[in-house]
Amino acid sequence: MVKCSRCKKPAFTKLARHNASFCEECFELFFSRQVNEAIKKYRMFHKTEPVLLGVSGGKDSMSLWHYLHRSGYQVVGIHFDLGIGEYSYLSRKIAEDFAQSYALPLQIIALSETIGYSIPQIAQRIRHRSPCSLCGSIKRYLLNQFAFSNHFTVYATGHNLDDETATLLGNVLHWQTDYLAHQNPSLPSPHPKMPRKVKPFYSLTEEEISLYARIKEIPFITEPCPLSKKAKSLNYKEALNLLEKYSPGTKHNFFFGFLEKASQLFSSHGEVVLKGCEICGMPTTQKTCSFCKIMQKVHERKDDHVHSRTE
Amino acid sequence: MVKCSRCKKPAFTKLARHNASFCEECFELFFSRQVNEAIKKYRMFHKTEPVLLGVSGGKDSMSLWHYLHRSGYQVVGIHFDLGIGEYSYLSRKIAEDFAQSYALPLQIIALSETIGYSIPQIAQRIRHRSPCSLCGSIKRYLLNQFAFSNHFTVYATGHNLDDETATLLGNVLHWQTDYLAHQNPSLPSPHPKMPRKVKPFYSLTEEEISLYARIKEIPFITEPCPLSKKAKSLNYKEALNLLEKYSPGTKHNFFFGFLEKASQLFSSHGEVVLKGCEICGMPTTQKTCSFCKIMQKVHERKDDHVHSRTE
Repeated sequence: MVKCSRCKKPAFTKLARHNASFCEECFELFFSRQVNEAIKKYRMFHKTEPVLLGVSGGKDSMSLWHYLHRSGYQVVGIHFDLGIGEYSYLSRKIAEDFAQSYALPLQIIALSETIGYSIPQIAQRIRHRSPCSLCGSIKRYLLNQFAFSNHFTVYATGHNLDDETATLLGNVLHWQTDYLAHQNPSLPSPHPKMPRKVKPFYSLTEEEISLYARIKEIPFITEPCPLSKKAKSLNYKEALNLLEKYSPGTKHNFFFGFLEKASQLFSSHGEVVLKGCEICGMPTTQKTCSFCKIMQKVHERKDDHVHSRTE
Repeated sequence: MVKCSRCKKPAFTKLARHNASFCEECFELFFSRQVNEAIKKYRMFHKTEPVLLGVSGGKDSMSLWHYLHRSGYQVVGIHFDLGIGEYSYLSRKIAEDFAQSYALPLQIIALSETIGYSIPQIAQRIRHRSPCSLCGSIKRYLLNQFAFSNHFTVYATGHNLDDETATLLGNVLHWQTDYLAHQNPSLPSPHPKMPRKVKPFYSLTEEEISLYARIKEIPFITEPCPLSKKAKSLNYKEALNLLEKYSPGTKHNFFFGFLEKASQLFSSHGEVVLKGCEICGMPTTQKTCSFCKIMQKVHERKDDHVHSRTE
């Protein structure tokens, strides 16, 4: 029988990358230490500061919500209802039910109400290589707007080590030096209208977070977004899983090595000047921000449609 | 029937990463252009300069030998007989037979004669995590020594795009900034006792070189070195092949993007001071060069053995 590396009781899981086995109790301790260390090392937030937390309904954000709440942080959840059929219905329900059970504040932003269109409607109107990139732009915009209007200074997300290494691999394969300059578990606010962004789970793997969710019986949506099936990040994750299998610790060393040895080499490539968008006034590097550009295209297409109908 | 993208004759191959199909003739033209462009762009060598070419007996080095010879370059082959059983016997025979058929100069360096031990003997005497790394150190040393004694100023190898991207991925996953500083298709000589090192095939894939070898009926050894079965480079190649399958051009963009956008960021990490090894006088960054360290260990082990026998 495999024993817990820490207390010698029967183990319930083995973490190859740490070459350690844990019982449930010691796994929780390991998990807490990883998150607390991340929050402390990167000075993410403290207990008196309200934290806005992006809640998708998936295992990572739901576990982070659970963890931060029970650790005494002041968390306000924010969930974007993207209008992607059953997937969005279920994700929202999970977030709402959880908020209700624990009496936690949750802000729902339903795209079809806030901007008049769901993600599938926008993707249908605009020919774009990837709905994920469109959706990301829209969520980032609405998030910044909400955080600014409601005086949130920090925004947390449930990104884990698998997410971070997949992003890092994608950035490295394309040598996107500007993105590499901004890849960090804690990003300072680049503009008074934008909160700083932090990732308390950056050192934990998907597998470890799933274990935490299982132990704590945290509800979450298991199916992925149906529009993200061709997302390149899935290919990067598959390649990294292969390398991790051959050599446990690959992901950890890749991401931590980047932060220690390489990140600063790219820093001069990330300097940007943010000014107000000529349409909405929110920060952008260009004349018009990407959200307003998307909405312009959506409205143009709508006009086209109306026009062609009346012809 | 698929047609050649260039001349519209029936195609014999499709290169996904170039989104092009070629007949045999146009493929050869494509191939030549890639190599000539590499030699010209990096000023690798010219036709009046003798080029020392590392010939392992594999498809890459044999094809490069064939290509450079028929293009009018002055090539001298150098083959290291590593003493790895049947594998070494066959590799050497292929190199010797080819040299004889085309009346080309070939230098054989048999490790068991030159240094008294084969690679398996050395690997057996020294506990080392990887025989590939030991073998690499020994070959590099003997190569530098031979090139210096025989006044060769340039050393060419058959490394291809798959090799280069696998090395790049390994260097990036570990953020070996010093190795990244030195990864280039053409490395200037860092010391008067060392030739510059060039890779004319750096922009061609394994698949493309195999096609060239097939068309030109170039003999080569197909089995890999039996000691390299656990080489990490094979895992990196597998991961990159997966990504290339999902997105043709991944390898090309990764390596060319590195050369264009990232390589110079690491350059300050590659500055080293080379001095003479206290034992052999060949250049090294340390007091004793890695070759002399290996040989010291080999001799120590031999003495131990003799000593324990006489006890």
